[in-house]
Amino acid sequence: MIPNTNYNNLKDSYLFYNIAQKINAYLKEHEGTKLYRMGIGDVSLPLCDAAIRALHEGVDDQSKKETFHGYMPECGAPFLRETISGYYQKRGVSLSSEEVFVSSGASDELGDILDIFGKGKIVLIMEPAYPAYVDANVMSGNTIIKLPAGKENGFLPSPSDLEKGISPDVIYICSPNNPTGAVFSKAGLKEWVDFANETEALIIFDAAYEAFISKDAVSADGVALPHSIFEIEGARTCAIEICSLSKTAGFTGTRCGYTAIAKDLKRGGMTINDMWVRNRTTKTNGVSYILQKGAAAIFTDEGQRQIHENIDIYKNNAKVLMEAVDSLGVWYTGGENAPYIWMECPGGLGSWEFFDRLLIEHQVVGTPGEGFGKCGEGYFRFSCFGSPEDTVEAAKRLKSFH
Amino acid sequence: MIPNTNYNNLKDSYLFYNIAQKINAYLKEHEGTKLYRMGIGDVSLPLCDAAIRALHEGVDDQSKKETFHGYMPECGAPFLRETISGYYQKRGVSLSSEEVFVSSGASDELGDILDIFGKGKIVLIMEPAYPAYVDANVMSGNTIIKLPAGKENGFLPSPSDLEKGISPDVIYICSPNNPTGAVFSKAGLKEWVDFANETEALIIFDAAYEAFISKDAVSADGVALPHSIFEIEGARTCAIEICSLSKTAGFTGTRCGYTAIAKDLKRGGMTINDMWVRNRTTKTNGVSYILQKGAAAIFTDEGQRQIHENIDIYKNNAKVLMEAVDSLGVWYTGGENAPYIWMECPGGLGSWEFFDRLLIEHQVVGTPGEGFGKCGEGYFRFSCFGSPEDTVEAAKRLKSFH
Repeated sequence: MIPNTNYNNLKDSYLFYNIAQKINAYLKEHEGTKLYRMGIGDVSLPLCDAAIRALHEGVDDQSKKETFHGYMPECGAPFLRETISGYYQKRGVSLSSEEVFVSSGASDELGDILDIFGKGKIVLIMEPAYPAYVDANVMSGNTIIKLPAGKENGFLPSPSDLEKGISPDVIYICSPNNPTGAVFSKAGLKEWVDFANETEALIIFDAAYEAFISKDAVSADGVALPHSIFEIEGARTCAIEICSLSKTAGFTGTRCGYTAIAKDLKRGGMTINDMWVRNRTTKTNGVSYILQKGAAAIFTDEGQRQIHENIDIYKNNAKVLMEAVDSLGVWYTGGENAPYIWMECPGGLGSWEFFDRLLIEHQVVGTPGEGFGKCGEGYFRFSCFGSPEDTVEAAKRLKSFH
Repeated sequence: MIPNTNYNNLKDSYLFYNIAQKINAYLKEHEGTKLYRMGIGDVSLPLCDAAIRALHEGVDDQSKKETFHGYMPECGAPFLRETISGYYQKRGVSLSSEEVFVSSGASDELGDILDIFGKGKIVLIMEPAYPAYVDANVMSGNTIIKLPAGKENGFLPSPSDLEKGISPDVIYICSPNNPTGAVFSKAGLKEWVDFANETEALIIFDAAYEAFISKDAVSADGVALPHSIFEIEGARTCAIEICSLSKTAGFTGTRCGYTAIAKDLKRGGMTINDMWVRNRTTKTNGVSYILQKGAAAIFTDEGQRQIHENIDIYKNNAKVLMEAVDSLGVWYTGGENAPYIWMECPGGLGSWEFFDRLLIEHQVVGTPGEGFGKCGEGYFRFSCFGSPEDTVEAAKRLKSFH
């Protein structure tokens, strides 16, 4: 047998490898030097008390015959599906518990969801982008159209930026965005929803960073920023929303997420929610009872209060870094409603030139924008997941950059 | 966009639905009647103490900054990969930790692994079979060849049972088998390994029930029964082994498993281990640290002792049921080295006729063999995962069947 030859078309991503190489080379020459790592995409704060307590309870339940859970329902435990449906309801989004699927996390779901697409699809990916969108579609043999974004549209492209006649089957949107931190307004998102409904495209909406949108955040038109694509009229007939507790609640190493697919979403006469039920019941045996117990605790009042205390720490890191970037007088986006700051490199420097100088002259590490797509050249990403102390010091050093 | 139309070719499995309907109808007429459910495929005993303790420790680690784990390595935590490699080593199987991948369970892995195959493959499935093998391949649009097994080969077909000229790309083998409980001998498995190496096919070996093979179990030739396909010479160049802690350690609702892919396995010039690394790093963010901590405890001496106490309870249930089947004087397989007994229906009854009579006359529930493929007609499956008390009563009632 000849296996899936699409894997031969995957390009190796050297971004994080190159960063590691440069850091190692620097540390070899400057042994013991402390670096301020603002490139990290992983969380650093432990799980909140409510989640820990629920996880312990979940483990205890598995220790006794009376409370032991065997196979879980493949699409999610009813108690968690209902809880998440209620979470949407609080924001005015009406999704039934059968429209919410519990997942092992957004990354897993972004991989698995391609089974629904079928083969030979045209897939639109806005760049700069999370590299896994591209790789998963290369593995499936889909045709990828990259839509480069830039400063001129605040890294938030609209369907009018597409070349005429291009009609993608699938459109990936990540908002708040990784890596740019830019957030679509309701009006901006409505353009994509309308476009998808008109062209019968399917939107994959990655909402992994929704919890970082500030409480009273509004777009330029004074309208509240959307946490969910289902806040937009028409989304029920075109969008799949993939959500995560990784950044919201520090679940990167604990794993649990959810996916919303309205029952109105039909393509080619097929109901996507039914297809996903069939996929889950065939290809999984559900998510761990213990993890679902922990995840449910995040959505209680206590859990929400506690996770927002952590999110506020990260958001304060962002504020500290934004002040530093402000002092450099360069353009940037993100930071306000996202854990990432996406800045223009000062003095017209290239992404890697700025990286080298920050590392060598200031011992600060960030991520060169060029690693997220060609249009990221000349830009740089800072993450806000580091410790407050390191962030304060990194910001101080950044301010002194000239 | 037109989604994956292969989903339209899926057949609904009415097996468990029909069973539920018949039970409900019976209970409606005989309110309050106690049924003895020997059809259940889920475990009933709670997790062992070693796993519970490790899971609690895992949760505690996630509560403190110093011990908190963010993103786990996508292919598995080194501590667990090494532990599983050591578990194989104890049985004389040499697999490096890089040849072992931690998974969310066999069911998930049996779904995900199809990405490696690519499209348009010819897939051989021995029947009676676990229905998900068929459904996952229908979703991919692969061509399925069913190889019916029967009493004449002890439900353990060999390559010589294949029609001449048939050369499958992928061969599914489940041993100990669900639903038949039959176990391949080393010699029987060697035939398939040789066939796969000669024809460049890929074997997917489902070893979910390996822990049920008794300590000193041998096949008719006096040779020990294989727990792993990697006990067979030549397997490193043709097989992927998918394993589970679900039945071994009661993890059906806790979720963790593992997959072994030797680095020697190449097809079409591609190294399957490399492809799986690329798949995992793109399409997952690894398995929960907490669950991996719990899984590792299963492989300690204490954990092994404790899980085998539970397995022995299930194996004793099997013994009780086998005595009853013996007394009916019908042919059967399984039970000795598997948690399933696969019996011929007494008196030449059809699968569903026997089901109806057992339910109505004896209040015992099992699974009609016809539900696992046409060649299962006239056979019946009993599972050994019920409570010892219920099993004893079910056996008593079965004995009185005439």
